[in-house]
Amino acid sequence: MKAVIIHAAKDLRVEQRSAAEPGTGQVGITIGAGGICGSDLHYYNHGGFGAVRVRHPMVLGHEVAGTVTAIGPDVKNLAVGDKVAVSPSLPCNQCEYCLAGQQNHCLDMRYYGSAMRNPHVDGAFQQQLVAEARQCHKLAEGISLVEGAFAEPFAVTLHAIRRAGSLLGKRVLITGCGPIGALCVIAARAHGASEIIITDVLDAPLTFAPKVGADRTINVADAPESLAALASGKGSVDVMFEASGNAAAFTSALSVLRPRSILVQLGMGEDVPLPLSVLVGKEIDIRGSFRFHEEFALAVDLINRRRVDVMPLLSDTLPIEDAVAAFELASDRSRSMKVQLAL
Amino acid sequence: MKAVIIHAAKDLRVEQRSAAEPGTGQVGITIGAGGICGSDLHYYNHGGFGAVRVRHPMVLGHEVAGTVTAIGPDVKNLAVGDKVAVSPSLPCNQCEYCLAGQQNHCLDMRYYGSAMRNPHVDGAFQQQLVAEARQCHKLAEGISLVEGAFAEPFAVTLHAIRRAGSLLGKRVLITGCGPIGALCVIAARAHGASEIIITDVLDAPLTFAPKVGADRTINVADAPESLAALASGKGSVDVMFEASGNAAAFTSALSVLRPRSILVQLGMGEDVPLPLSVLVGKEIDIRGSFRFHEEFALAVDLINRRRVDVMPLLSDTLPIEDAVAAFELASDRSRSMKVQLAL
Amino acid sequence: MKAVIIHAAKDLRVEQRSAAEPGTGQVGITIGAGGICGSDLHYYNHGGFGAVRVRHPMVLGHEVAGTVTAIGPDVKNLAVGDKVAVSPSLPCNQCEYCLAGQQNHCLDMRYYGSAMRNPHVDGAFQQQLVAEARQCHKLAEGISLVEGAFAEPFAVTLHAIRRAGSLLGKRVLITGCGPIGALCVIAARAHGASEIIITDVLDAPLTFAPKVGADRTINVADAPESLAALASGKGSVDVMFEASGNAAAFTSALSVLRPRSILVQLGMGEDVPLPLSVLVGKEIDIRGSFRFHEEFALAVDLINRRRVDVMPLLSDTLPIEDAVAAFELASDRSRSMKVQLAL
Amino acid sequence: MKAVIIHAAKDLRVEQRSAAEPGTGQVGITIGAGGICGSDLHYYNHGGFGAVRVRHPMVLGHEVAGTVTAIGPDVKNLAVGDKVAVSPSLPCNQCEYCLAGQQNHCLDMRYYGSAMRNPHVDGAFQQQLVAEARQCHKLAEGISLVEGAFAEPFAVTLHAIRRAGSLLGKRVLITGCGPIGALCVIAARAHGASEIIITDVLDAPLTFAPKVGADRTINVADAPESLAALASGKGSVDVMFEASGNAAAFTSALSVLRPRSILVQLGMGEDVPLPLSVLVGKEIDIRGSFRFHEEFALAVDLINRRRVDVMPLLSDTLPIEDAVAAFELASDRSRSMKVQLAL
Repeated sequence: MKAVIIHAAKDLRVEQRSAAEPGTGQVGITIGAGGICGSDLHYYNHGGFGAVRVRHPMVLGHEVAGTVTAIGPDVKNLAVGDKVAVSPSLPCNQCEYCLAGQQNHCLDMRYYGSAMRNPHVDGAFQQQLVAEARQCHKLAEGISLVEGAFAEPFAVTLHAIRRAGSLLGKRVLITGCGPIGALCVIAARAHGASEIIITDVLDAPLTFAPKVGADRTINVADAPESLAALASGKGSVDVMFEASGNAAAFTSALSVLRPRSILVQLGMGEDVPLPLSVLVGKEIDIRGSFRFHEEFALAVDLINRRRVDVMPLLSDTLPIEDAVAAFELASDRSRSMKVQLAL
Repeated sequence: MKAVIIHAAKDLRVEQRSAAEPGTGQVGITIGAGGICGSDLHYYNHGGFGAVRVRHPMVLGHEVAGTVTAIGPDVKNLAVGDKVAVSPSLPCNQCEYCLAGQQNHCLDMRYYGSAMRNPHVDGAFQQQLVAEARQCHKLAEGISLVEGAFAEPFAVTLHAIRRAGSLLGKRVLITGCGPIGALCVIAARAHGASEIIITDVLDAPLTFAPKVGADRTINVADAPESLAALASGKGSVDVMFEASGNAAAFTSALSVLRPRSILVQLGMGEDVPLPLSVLVGKEIDIRGSFRFHEEFALAVDLINRRRVDVMPLLSDTLPIEDAVAAFELASDRSRSMKVQLAL
Repeated sequence: MKAVIIHAAKDLRVEQRSAAEPGTGQVGITIGAGGICGSDLHYYNHGGFGAVRVRHPMVLGHEVAGTVTAIGPDVKNLAVGDKVAVSPSLPCNQCEYCLAGQQNHCLDMRYYGSAMRNPHVDGAFQQQLVAEARQCHKLAEGISLVEGAFAEPFAVTLHAIRRAGSLLGKRVLITGCGPIGALCVIAARAHGASEIIITDVLDAPLTFAPKVGADRTINVADAPESLAALASGKGSVDVMFEASGNAAAFTSALSVLRPRSILVQLGMGEDVPLPLSVLVGKEIDIRGSFRFHEEFALAVDLINRRRVDVMPLLSDTLPIEDAVAAFELASDRSRSMKVQLAL
Repeated sequence: MKAVIIHAAKDLRVEQRSAAEPGTGQVGITIGAGGICGSDLHYYNHGGFGAVRVRHPMVLGHEVAGTVTAIGPDVKNLAVGDKVAVSPSLPCNQCEYCLAGQQNHCLDMRYYGSAMRNPHVDGAFQQQLVAEARQCHKLAEGISLVEGAFAEPFAVTLHAIRRAGSLLGKRVLITGCGPIGALCVIAARAHGASEIIITDVLDAPLTFAPKVGADRTINVADAPESLAALASGKGSVDVMFEASGNAAAFTSALSVLRPRSILVQLGMGEDVPLPLSVLVGKEIDIRGSFRFHEEFALAVDLINRRRVDVMPLLSDTLPIEDAVAAFELASDRSRSMKVQLAL
């Protein structure tokens, strides 16, 4: 079977690997769809991010869905033929953070396609995957694997919504209209935001936002004054989701936030300058949001119930053989939104 | 009567002013004690801070207590002879923020000794002060004006405690052992912090901290490794109060914070670099804390009930005539903690 | 002009009254639609509720919308011809509760059609109404007065949602499918509830619930076992909105609540027996929810943006002349959901 | 070795049992002090409470401290000679509630001296106890076993404080001055309550309250008007801890609660009548509080650091041989506060 393996920056290969058999509590899955994520692109373009570097070949990918083809011992609730979204997150469920219900901070986390630990944990861009049954969440009748492969990034945004608290009556600003920013639109709309404004420095990605519920889009490169208008009084935005990891986006947004507003930071990236006088003077509340835990099941549930429609965000699907082209395409924000591999 | 007036950076004068009569809802007060605050020192040393500059002579001072000497029409609950702490904060009680219970964000705030609006609002370092009755909080029998003049900075730290939420079972780190940091020790101790650690770059201020309830002090200039030891695992500090406004204090402290911890920012100052990977990876919650509102009455109440003892933090008292010397002394952290004027 | 006036239990009259002129800050409104509320029915059927009794003739009604026909001095933002929903709530904006942002607990509240204070405050079932401009919220182009008259009861349920906190991922149970329970369905759906189950003892009202977003309906008189099934484990419901005020509904629902779940109580009524062992053993959180404040503007906004559709809940519209028949119809839950008067 | 065993209501026996050896992860402890709890008294006086009945002989007791005398395999951090407080709570750490950080709702909880499951879990009133190492919390140098045996009931009250949220600036009412109510005084005082008022129907227990920090005591049998005075306006109490389980205490207290206040229910007992009009009209928040989890370690920590002094609440110590007399004494609130056995 084929797998998509990162060897070093710009050295991505589709290679043959032998498939494994599911052990106790595990299942075998034929993966059908895999979304390319921003962190995949970091490995591809830069060999990692910050202190996290690829030190040996690693299968990439953590946004996947497939069909169960083999059942290991002691697995209940799953059967051959089930379509499942596979969570890339495998917390230990024994450390102090797991036992406090904060599994995304697990001290012994295994996360697909991540070079955070050594040896790295392989990812899920492989045609045959063996996964723990507890990672697998059944898709409902009529839900496609393509939709299922959106569960992971959607879970990331649902976790961000949880971090923000209730959105009832809130004017929401989202900075950065990549796949995470755009999924934030869906998540915020589904959870009651009154008004959703999204910004980017490119027009192309912003065209996707109204299709999934954004009320307004602002190209802050072309029309910074449109953003600045939101700063009237002491600011008019109640909750902001920062999904760009960009210093300019972060800083310029602070001026449009109201006193006592909440800024949920999703984007990783460079250090950003934080003006203490604004932070203090407006009593802004800045909250980091990292991955997800129970929100994966929620993402699948919302997709299963058709409460949300993620399909408008799929811009391209390429066969696994064209993985390099797919990664190049996904790296070009002017030409793509979410790019998936067909495995 | 005499007043302490800032004309420009390093140009502070004690001048004669004529006393006013209290109008409707007002009282006349003979001020007895006035604490010098960090913002007073900013006006004195730099002529302001950030965009806030002294544009015309302004009476300084907003930490004062005195004795009521005259009662205007329609004032109840106050009588000649009452000792009172005077809140420097006069929100409009009509704007959207006031009607949302967020008076510290009032759109039309009048705050003693502040150049934020033009013309500036005069401060309270004047021997005879006319104040609104609602600004005056009675001191209990046996409480001195010196203690009463601590109500304002103590209220600032009580508001920070409120911003942090419950401290039950929390390990608290306070960065910066000036008067605000030291009062944070008192406030955190009174509200149940399990352990309180305070840092500074000087030994002298740190000697005050154990007298008011700190469990440990760390001179981070001399012993950065003592702070670094708190970073074991993913960090060990639950709640941090940043009272220095210093970039190094801010950044180094992030490494000792636990996942899902809270950083309450009190100190104003330069921009600080915020590492998004730490903010996101640990899901830290950074909350600005600005002045206070109902906490002024609470500060007086806690002092009145002798729940707290602020007196160990008074390092020096100088007569109003020596205001310049007092400001110089207060500017030297190696020689003073809280410096008060006797008016 | 005509007004609907309660004289005593079962003594409701449509009488002629003279119209007033708008004073400073006021507008004159021709009321077009008025919804009959449960409290209106209490006055009609019982002369009041609890200690609140009708002591003199009082105009009823507090769910109204109309068209501005006259503008008093100093009114901005409104013009003749504007269609508006009129909030029945007029807090003093000066008492301690108003200045804490808790206007629904105002110590000097004036609320339309309420006998809580003496003399009573007249309601809005009158063809010509003079209201404060701040009570009037503009309806958007294309929004009908009928929809506008839903703003008040919808605001009540939005406030209940706020009291519950975020509904992200929550299984919601609503007990009592009257207009308030049914509007809770709309409000919970719009704010992200994962699953919504609603109960009643009659089939007729339950038929309305799926039209506005309920996932399941349970007639607890016919099929108590369907409710009981939700009690498996330690219970499976995360958030409950109790909208019946009925002791049996309250008590039986406790058994289906999960540990740490939230019960928001909207329904007034008789005393209910509270089993302390369940309250304590499951650490249930029971929160009263009373009227609304900023949620009125939010209700209008959500209706204006067509985020919600309240129209399926309108069962009947009768002319003002038939007010008695309308009140009788609204009192019969087997024949009606929301009954409105056309004024 | 001797153990205190309940056979049926009023049939309590001190019997010989053979001591066990610690297995892997366990330690052997010579118990020195054991406090008698209200639930012990329920078993003694009534054979249980509600549906929980003693169905076979069971060792009672869950408030104990002792000295480690034997160490099983794989135990670290404990040594022979250590003095420890022993938590009676042994959650499974595997069920959905444990993995959500809600171990007090564990689906497979083993709790000392509880007849909730069958066969019952034996308690700790035995001279030699084998416990899991994770149940044992070291006492600091100079802390007595008598103090250590207060950790459990103190943890119960610390959990109640956590349920209440921050007490900063809050006026607290505690109803019921048994050991739990009196320990609530200590816990509330240590966590910043502004003012603490405690009620009972007997004078004797109320004499203990000022020794541990209560500002006022009210005998509501003798002076109901003193409680009623707190109801002025819409009520004046911000947070209430109900520790009596008594219907009259519960109901009368509602009238003194402010709008948006919090009532934390600790006391189990009969059903109480809940007036919906008060619950709704004041938007009271009633929160059950059940046992504790991480608060046991916190209780030991606060005792170890001498942040609190529980000793004033120890009224009597009897030898294990006099267990029946001790249970009778503890059952008489007019003669005792906390009664401990010396084992």
